[in-house]
Amino acid sequence: MTDVSIVGGSGYTGGELLRLLLGHPNVTIKQVTSRSHLGEYIYQVHPNLRKRTQIKFTDPAQIDNVDVLFLALPHGQAQLDISRYFKLAIKIVDLSADFRLRDAALYQQWYGKPHTAPEWLSKFIYGLPELHRAEMGTANYISGVGCNATACNLALLPLVKAGLLEMSAPIICEIKVGSSEGGAEGNPGSHHPERASVIRTFSPFGHRHTAEVIQEMGLPNISLTMTSVDLVRGVLATVHAAVRKGVSNKDLWQAYRAAATANPFIRIVKEQRGIYRVPEPKILAGSNYADLGFDLDETNGHIVSMCAIDNLMKGASGSAVQCMNLMLGLDETTGLGFSGLHPI
Amino acid sequence: MTDVSIVGGSGYTGGELLRLLLGHPNVTIKQVTSRSHLGEYIYQVHPNLRKRTQIKFTDPAQIDNVDVLFLALPHGQAQLDISRYFKLAIKIVDLSADFRLRDAALYQQWYGKPHTAPEWLSKFIYGLPELHRAEMGTANYISGVGCNATACNLALLPLVKAGLLEMSAPIICEIKVGSSEGGAEGNPGSHHPERASVIRTFSPFGHRHTAEVIQEMGLPNISLTMTSVDLVRGVLATVHAAVRKGVSNKDLWQAYRAAATANPFIRIVKEQRGIYRVPEPKILAGSNYADLGFDLDETNGHIVSMCAIDNLMKGASGSAVQCMNLMLGLDETTGLGFSGLHPI
Amino acid sequence: MTDVSIVGGSGYTGGELLRLLLGHPNVTIKQVTSRSHLGEYIYQVHPNLRKRTQIKFTDPAQIDNVDVLFLALPHGQAQLDISRYFKLAIKIVDLSADFRLRDAALYQQWYGKPHTAPEWLSKFIYGLPELHRAEMGTANYISGVGCNATACNLALLPLVKAGLLEMSAPIICEIKVGSSEGGAEGNPGSHHPERASVIRTFSPFGHRHTAEVIQEMGLPNISLTMTSVDLVRGVLATVHAAVRKGVSNKDLWQAYRAAATANPFIRIVKEQRGIYRVPEPKILAGSNYADLGFDLDETNGHIVSMCAIDNLMKGASGSAVQCMNLMLGLDETTGLGFSGLHPI
Amino acid sequence: MTDVSIVGGSGYTGGELLRLLLGHPNVTIKQVTSRSHLGEYIYQVHPNLRKRTQIKFTDPAQIDNVDVLFLALPHGQAQLDISRYFKLAIKIVDLSADFRLRDAALYQQWYGKPHTAPEWLSKFIYGLPELHRAEMGTANYISGVGCNATACNLALLPLVKAGLLEMSAPIICEIKVGSSEGGAEGNPGSHHPERASVIRTFSPFGHRHTAEVIQEMGLPNISLTMTSVDLVRGVLATVHAAVRKGVSNKDLWQAYRAAATANPFIRIVKEQRGIYRVPEPKILAGSNYADLGFDLDETNGHIVSMCAIDNLMKGASGSAVQCMNLMLGLDETTGLGFSGLHPI
Repeated sequence: MTDVSIVGGSGYTGGELLRLLLGHPNVTIKQVTSRSHLGEYIYQVHPNLRKRTQIKFTDPAQIDNVDVLFLALPHGQAQLDISRYFKLAIKIVDLSADFRLRDAALYQQWYGKPHTAPEWLSKFIYGLPELHRAEMGTANYISGVGCNATACNLALLPLVKAGLLEMSAPIICEIKVGSSEGGAEGNPGSHHPERASVIRTFSPFGHRHTAEVIQEMGLPNISLTMTSVDLVRGVLATVHAAVRKGVSNKDLWQAYRAAATANPFIRIVKEQRGIYRVPEPKILAGSNYADLGFDLDETNGHIVSMCAIDNLMKGASGSAVQCMNLMLGLDETTGLGFSGLHPI
Repeated sequence: MTDVSIVGGSGYTGGELLRLLLGHPNVTIKQVTSRSHLGEYIYQVHPNLRKRTQIKFTDPAQIDNVDVLFLALPHGQAQLDISRYFKLAIKIVDLSADFRLRDAALYQQWYGKPHTAPEWLSKFIYGLPELHRAEMGTANYISGVGCNATACNLALLPLVKAGLLEMSAPIICEIKVGSSEGGAEGNPGSHHPERASVIRTFSPFGHRHTAEVIQEMGLPNISLTMTSVDLVRGVLATVHAAVRKGVSNKDLWQAYRAAATANPFIRIVKEQRGIYRVPEPKILAGSNYADLGFDLDETNGHIVSMCAIDNLMKGASGSAVQCMNLMLGLDETTGLGFSGLHPI
Repeated sequence: MTDVSIVGGSGYTGGELLRLLLGHPNVTIKQVTSRSHLGEYIYQVHPNLRKRTQIKFTDPAQIDNVDVLFLALPHGQAQLDISRYFKLAIKIVDLSADFRLRDAALYQQWYGKPHTAPEWLSKFIYGLPELHRAEMGTANYISGVGCNATACNLALLPLVKAGLLEMSAPIICEIKVGSSEGGAEGNPGSHHPERASVIRTFSPFGHRHTAEVIQEMGLPNISLTMTSVDLVRGVLATVHAAVRKGVSNKDLWQAYRAAATANPFIRIVKEQRGIYRVPEPKILAGSNYADLGFDLDETNGHIVSMCAIDNLMKGASGSAVQCMNLMLGLDETTGLGFSGLHPI
Repeated sequence: MTDVSIVGGSGYTGGELLRLLLGHPNVTIKQVTSRSHLGEYIYQVHPNLRKRTQIKFTDPAQIDNVDVLFLALPHGQAQLDISRYFKLAIKIVDLSADFRLRDAALYQQWYGKPHTAPEWLSKFIYGLPELHRAEMGTANYISGVGCNATACNLALLPLVKAGLLEMSAPIICEIKVGSSEGGAEGNPGSHHPERASVIRTFSPFGHRHTAEVIQEMGLPNISLTMTSVDLVRGVLATVHAAVRKGVSNKDLWQAYRAAATANPFIRIVKEQRGIYRVPEPKILAGSNYADLGFDLDETNGHIVSMCAIDNLMKGASGSAVQCMNLMLGLDETTGLGFSGLHPI
């Protein structure tokens, strides 16, 4: 058994991580920290875990040595203490945005302030197994992923890998998101009477996750547009791009099938009939799948590529556990077997 | 034209009052106060009023004399300054809970602290026109109504008025409510990821509105059970009681029809077929109707009486405007003509 | 008073039309037809109209002569009987898709079959007052509008009118829609367990409303992408385009302000602070407003223009009544005074 | 490995059963039948199972011998063919209402027609392990449970078992339910624009599940009131009853704790602080837990007992798998380990 601890376990990604690790056959949870819920049972904060564990939140200052340390802190905090965490565990998975970008200048550009531990940036592998599986087997430090970035990266992955994109055309990623993306802390816009039934394009461009797509896909001419809609868990990225002249539907099928074959959590959803013809995030709640679909307008080469994920799973804690599995040499699907529900 | 002002106009009941008064043919809005939004346009807080008015929020300390003053303050504040408001307007409608109960001891029992202006309690008429229409024509001070109390009072009105209830049997009022009941200020439980899709019986008994039902219906043996469900506007009270031996369906129809005939905003919804067979709050959003339905189990005298309202309209600001109309000698439906929407 | 009748009054657009016309000060409703609900009270189908009217549905075969005839039939039916309707009323407003396109070939291309009354196409004015107000004063035949087309057309209107668009760049209209767009008849995908919490990009391109945008805006290089989300009423179009080199934020403000000044139902929603910074359809339920917003990426000329409407109002029945007002020489806002609700 | 087949696998309970059995370590699924989806992959009907199985629906007429046969047919069908199924498997779990009542007269009373296989009624054990665990170890035929009946039965279980109820007082079970209770087939009332945001007391009393509560709890003086609210999965029963004179909160804690100790899927949710103080069904989606809470009004002995479940799990397929486990001598929690999600 591998001993793991979680620093910052009271948020939504921390809770999801706890759910996954409690059900994981190869790990033992040693400590879970929370300053604001110190001394409380974790099921008082994560009510789905009642009768599953008697662990209480402990003080982050008193964390012990452990095999794998998960950091699930608010953005900006992990970089302040990374040299301390480094001494506590051989392997670290940080779910925040702190170590996702390899370039300190890019970090400053998108996050608006200098990185406080820039020397650590190159030590972390970007935490999306579908992009960096090979490197993860020998890695000790893995970053988290942005949920919206993940939906875009996976929507683009088959196209980029097969070289099908016309690189001169701008790429528009239209992303629709649920309310859990905002985290466990409420704000005026998340008050239910204001948030229910909403269609709110809160960020037309300039979202920080853009940097992760630019870095990982090598596509500078890209923009992410964020729209809040009424669900709790789920992201759908509807990505508009242009394919190179001559690219056919057959080429596309080949590229998407290759992605689904190479990656256990990628599925293609593209049916002619029925009501489940395209990727939909709602059935993915709690699962680690990324469902991909696409449609090509053969008259003009306009491709619409879709990716649906659960932002707390494939977009955060699910990918983090998958990364841990790869770091530990386990089957990458271990502990991630939940299929999702229907109807829901 | 009657000049009116609103003290405390930035909450949900204040906003609804503004919407109604801006569309009212007989009144002119002079001032609307808000401490927290001082100087802002009211459409920045009530976005539906954009392009309808250029009024800005003013300081409550600088309110001028006016014909009718509406108080839409948080509970407990109107009683502190009532002697000041009394000098500013001949007629006052207070939407808070401060002047709903006639008995200071009852107030202390349900609100947990002594009333600070008990001598004013007897000067206010309880603000439900369906119960106190006659007195309102000559009244100067009218209280608001509790939204949940209103749903119960109107569900019980036909039964009480016709003397059909078996008084020895306990009455269970099962009330399902939307999120706007909690007001414009968020709290941890109103955060969308926590509040969406909820069925939460947050108060099994002991809700403060119980006092208003006891007072107005003269039914001491009653309890209100509150359950939050997923909608923004709307209350449904499903009231369980027993009818006196021998009471028939025909007696009930007569009693409910009498209520609908006597009151322009009461409708009976009781169809044998179709999908609109019972009262449903969702189609009442923005309307002042109270929809009543009932069903009698003839085997045992168990009656289920239902009342659906919009908590911000018939349960608050709509009734307040109706009261003002009656005080001013206007047709009580003036400015309350919106029918509600379907579908919604 | 003007006498009006509605052919096909049992659907959602018919119901919304009824609500508006019942509250309209200058018209009297003579007949409302429905084959499937023949003889029923209209409030049994449109429950919000209970206690507002005692009209029953009549047989479409027995419709009398009238001043204005509204046709609210399923697509494809009005064109079959247009020569009959023509004899029944001097003025006709058809809400279906049958007379929106001026070119029979375009109709065939997008609707997949020949138009059965092509000679009538040129007699109809496209029913969006913001585009054809001047012609409507003398018109007798006005078409309806597609709700999604309307959201796109109004998002593009300020840009096209001021000539700010770079015409060579493709335009992507990302449209998020509520469930009432599908009409009153259910289908497997509209079953609540399947439709709730959905984010479903059901049409990546090729939606029929595209033809209306191409025709009215003169922008052939455009695509509409349709995504269902969880609300009942409302459309948000998030339109991605490029502005001409040198176009500044100031130019855009000027163009959008001009549109809001010229059109009583256009509002600009673009705030720096607060939670109502961008257009949101939910507060428009029941109102005829179109809320516009925009954002310019000055680094690359990427403009995101947003338009929120209620699909049953500005996108259907509200615009139809506004057209009738203009045809009759009335103030175009008559009977369309409802501001919308907040919260909702 | 135990071979199992499912007759009638295309509905919601069939789909949930498939999800559970595909993840069950001790069973192999042999056949799944569906007349309407014959030959389709099961993931085309249950989209969450994509990439989990390549099984296709087969003809119910061609079902082979098997160890355990699950019948998930519409009510009324299992009883027609029970003598055929009896020959196909030693053990049968029927999820429909056909074999839940022991008394054919009771069946006729509540279902309005005579049972066609009354001789089979006494052979089936009522399928709630919390009530009949001991008998299940040697049983071959187990019925399903009504989801609403289950929420009531479990809310009442601690009170009945400890003999705390005042038997002369009527019991009111106020049940709020999600849309998946209606099954996979849509109807006019389940069309999203009609069903979203609904609070609809569709059955004030007389619901068929009442018979199961009467039979299992021995409480004839009971009524079930059904109200639809806006969520997909979940039931909350808020049960109003009276306790015997002298019963204290301590007695109640003892009774509820005994139930939670004796039953692995019963949890007590009763906190003083925080936002998870009472049972809520939404966090139970996909889990087999029944969360119980209670509150006693000591002034009058009014007890409110609450039970939240997922209607497709503890209220149907989850309990069915738990029964199978007990019949096969396995740990009753096998294959039912999913904890539920938060937030959702």
